[in-house]
Amino acid sequence: MDVVNYLLGYENLKICQNSKMFNFSLDSVLLPNFVTINLKVQNILDIGCGNAPIPLILTTKTKAHITGVEIQKDVFKLAEKSVKCNNLNDQITLINDDINNLSKKWESEMFDIIVCNPPFFKIKGNSHLNESEYKTIARHEITLNLENLMSICRKLLKNNGVVSIVHRPERLVEIIEIMRKNNIEPKKMQLVYPKQDASANILLIEGRKNGKEGLKILEPLFTHDEKGEYTKTIKKYFE
Amino acid sequence: MDVVNYLLGYENLKICQNSKMFNFSLDSVLLPNFVTINLKVQNILDIGCGNAPIPLILTTKTKAHITGVEIQKDVFKLAEKSVKCNNLNDQITLINDDINNLSKKWESEMFDIIVCNPPFFKIKGNSHLNESEYKTIARHEITLNLENLMSICRKLLKNNGVVSIVHRPERLVEIIEIMRKNNIEPKKMQLVYPKQDASANILLIEGRKNGKEGLKILEPLFTHDEKGEYTKTIKKYFE
Repeated sequence: MDVVNYLLGYENLKICQNSKMFNFSLDSVLLPNFVTINLKVQNILDIGCGNAPIPLILTTKTKAHITGVEIQKDVFKLAEKSVKCNNLNDQITLINDDINNLSKKWESEMFDIIVCNPPFFKIKGNSHLNESEYKTIARHEITLNLENLMSICRKLLKNNGVVSIVHRPERLVEIIEIMRKNNIEPKKMQLVYPKQDASANILLIEGRKNGKEGLKILEPLFTHDEKGEYTKTIKKYFE
Repeated sequence: MDVVNYLLGYENLKICQNSKMFNFSLDSVLLPNFVTINLKVQNILDIGCGNAPIPLILTTKTKAHITGVEIQKDVFKLAEKSVKCNNLNDQITLINDDINNLSKKWESEMFDIIVCNPPFFKIKGNSHLNESEYKTIARHEITLNLENLMSICRKLLKNNGVVSIVHRPERLVEIIEIMRKNNIEPKKMQLVYPKQDASANILLIEGRKNGKEGLKILEPLFTHDEKGEYTKTIKKYFE
């Protein structure tokens, strides 16, 4: 059943969810808070927008137009409901299609910013067989992998435009390599650790099309404190 | 004037220093505590060992033989004194030469581990003109750059051997690219932040020759707490 929830931490934003598909996650809240947005930004693209948490949060940060693309019809319908019940149809355009098709049809250099919370896992044998099809497509590189994501960004980003993604630290090396192969220079990175003495489990990374060399690694984020409770930073998002 | 100091945090280790050249730094203490050492390790190489802080600290962690190479004669002499006054001549061999020459003469696959605290800065015009020659060579990529460091590691490391370096986070992208070009897969990384809410200023990274893909990013280290005092982790090294 579809449920309308408030988007935690954002008093005025509501989001449509369905637990059989998936609920929005911490990743989707971290990314719009990480991406570099300035006043000149006109067009933002969210690739694989799910039920639209990232476009919704971005509306609190910019007046730019946001396009959300979602390949899964039922998930796309949730996104539509979410945008409608927030009266954000003017700022957010949703498209139910495969970004690989759209990118071929679209002109080059349409966007100032591309954000993406992509599938994290490589396809390995039957590793995804216990999941629903919704979750399989969202989590495994079946319809979108890093190679085609970055080649799409190379085409669709304006010169000096940025792409920001959330991913797993294990794959940092590959991400950097594929970004650079596509003339996207990694410029900003932030690591999220579950607690002070644990390895990082979330990676935020931003690259700039035709950017100069030189990476900045921002202050670390922690999700839990010593008592096992959410840290202040995370509470801001989830209260 | 040469001064013999205790190597802070290591009760029994003494080190020879001369402030006109340079003193050992936090970098040199972090690296031997970061590198992966197991019981099978037989031969370790420290490229650009300075006055030998890294070989000295490594003797507290392994029985393996350690070779330290230092290009600068006067700095090499300090290293010799340090090793001698600790009676570590059996475990540490020092060589006053350019690693670029040595590497050509030496056989392949001699070392299980290579450590290096390399020059951090690219040569840009006259950026180093205000420093002494000692500091210039230690800090700027004049006698050793990342490209030749990693190609030396490719030759001298045994299969599955590791190279661990300390560097600046700004250059992470380049380091990863150059490691991979030399069949060295980045496997472990740790970031050091001056305080909780600041960007990272020290990078520790380890690669494995012919290793499998997959990077682990260890828990963050902080040098200062909220009061501006050294953190417990750092005090362990400097008390």
